[in-house]
Order: sequence, then C-alpha cells, then structure tokens
Amino acid sequence: MMHPIRVLGIDPGLRRMGWGVIEVAGNRLSFIASGTVTSDNKKSLAERLVQLHDGLTRVVELQAPAESAVELTFVNKDAGATLKLGQARGIALLVPSLAGLTVAEYAPNLVKKTVVGTGHAEKTQIRAMVKVLMPKAVFDTDDAADALAIAICHAHHRNTNSGRLAQLGAA
Amino acid sequence: MMHPIRVLGIDPGLRRMGWGVIEVAGNRLSFIASGTVTSDNKKSLAERLVQLHDGLTRVVELQAPAESAVELTFVNKDAGATLKLGQARGIALLVPSLAGLTVAEYAPNLVKKTVVGTGHAEKTQIRAMVKVLMPKAVFDTDDAADALAIAICHAHHRNTNSGRLAQLGAA
Repeated sequence: MMHPIRVLGIDPGLRRMGWGVIEVAGNRLSFIASGTVTSDNKKSLAERLVQLHDGLTRVVELQAPAESAVELTFVNKDAGATLKLGQARGIALLVPSLAGLTVAEYAPNLVKKTVVGTGHAEKTQIRAMVKVLMPKAVFDTDDAADALAIAICHAHHRNTNSGRLAQLGAA
Repeated sequence: MMHPIRVLGIDPGLRRMGWGVIEVAGNRLSFIASGTVTSDNKKSLAERLVQLHDGLTRVVELQAPAESAVELTFVNKDAGATLKLGQARGIALLVPSLAGLTVAEYAPNLVKKTVVGTGHAEKTQIRAMVKVLMPKAVFDTDDAADALAIAICHAHHRNTNSGRLAQLGAA
C-alpha cells in the first residue's frame, strides 16, 4: 500500500498559466483541483510576472503538493515569443522550487505519448483522455487540461529513469 | 535640492546576474555597491532560479533601492539560449517588483549610448566610462559593470519620456 502523494502539473505561459493537482496512490490517480492563473496584459511585464508568482504561490499553499512537473517549452523561430514564454516559465519553475518541491520537466511529446498514446495528439484528445483517466476531472481551459496531463505524465515517470532521461534529453 | 534615491540596475543571466546600486541626487551620481549573483550549473534549472531569486532578494533587502532597471535582452537565432536567458530574466524582473519597486527596461544600445555616447560601445569602454562617472565604483565582473551602466541609464531617463518610450519601443 503506497502512501498517496499530490502532484502539481504546470503548463507555463505569460497570459495563462494552467495548473492541475492530482493524487497518486500506486497506479491510482485522482483529480484534486485545476485552474488557470492569468496575467493582465495592460500591466508591465514585471507586474504580470508578480501576478503569476502570486497566483501560483496561492495554489501551492492551498493544494500542498509534494512534487511538481512543468512542461518543457517548444522553442520556435519567433525569438520574441520564446523570450516571453521563457520569462513566464522561469516563474513556473521558481515557485514550486521555492516551496521545497521537486520540479520535473517533461517534453510535450512525452506528455502526449504518456496520456494519449501518441506524441502527436491534438488538444481535444488530451482533454478526452484526462477525463477517461480521471472521470471527476474538471478544467476551465485547455491550459488547465494540459497541466493535468503533465501531472499524469509525472505520475507515470516519477519512479523510473525515463522521467529523468526525458528531462535530460530534452533540456 | 532633490532628495537622493537609490537605483538598482540588473544585467540578467542564468549563470551570472550582475547588479549595481547607485545613488542619484539631481545630476549627481554616487556608487553604492555592486556584485554578481551566480547559479551553480550542476543544479537543476529550478534550483538555479531559486539561487538567483535568493541572491537578488538579499541585494534588495540590504541595499533598499527605490527604483530598478533591467536590461532588455537581445533575442538571437539560438532559441535555446534565448529561452534560458528568458527564464533568468523572469527572476530579474520579478524580485524587485515583488518588493514594490518600479522596474524600467532599457535596450542595450540605449544603455551604451547614455553611458559611452555611442550605441556600439565595447565592454572595456563601458567599464572605463562607469569609472569616469563614478570614480569610486568597483565591480567584480563585466556583468556588475553593465548593471551599474543600466542604473546610470535609468538615472538619466527616469524623469523623461524617453525612458518610457525606449521601453515601449524595444519591448
């Protein structure tokens, strides 16, 4: 009988940061909560990062997860977009680590492969499989559904080397 | 007679984050302190961001600046490097903003133009001009010297629209 642990998944973004908390007990996964932290694009970048920091910090305090996982970011040809996402992602990695949680990182295709069975799944397939795996799951945005998928991915890989290797290989 | 204020300049980077604090009283600039916060590249990215956060937080607590300025980041063709720098830059913007400071942003060529007189200055020219403007200035790294240059740039532009426009134009 394994002691259940709570896992926080985070899908980083500057405008919307999806989060999802699940409970893992051996092979059993249960939905706990999910949501989306947003930042106000009329504010300065520094103020937006504070909004994301404060929102995520509240999630960590309220949900008390023991481990966390953050999606690795696609770097694309739009360097400005990559920089913007990088700044938000810095906050997504910082907040759980400040609270003493481990922070795993998983490439998007590993998340999709783990949850849907193929690395090229669509958003709708991810939402559907999250509901199959955890029928009680609710999510307000695609970002929150993605965050739950990231938490599920971590639940599958946290005790194996593959999670660590996926992290190293894609970093 | 203007009340002196302290300005914190930050040159963001994942391995080395340069910082410099100056005092501004009207047109008079005085060196207060400078240094470099480093992160350990043997640690995970999340742990490194915590090291930068903790180091910068200590600087803000000890030096008690009233305003801050962070260099705008060059985005280049290496998307991986841009992402890495973006994550560190997120921390550089977050920490002073969490402490309630304003956070201005200046493009590297405006910093160089303000301090040296040309937007294409070399590192050695920046170091030399920082010493001319503030003979008592000391810095342990080029990053700390750059951070002092960013603080000087903010001292020149903080009461004009040009700082704000530079910020908007380059953002």
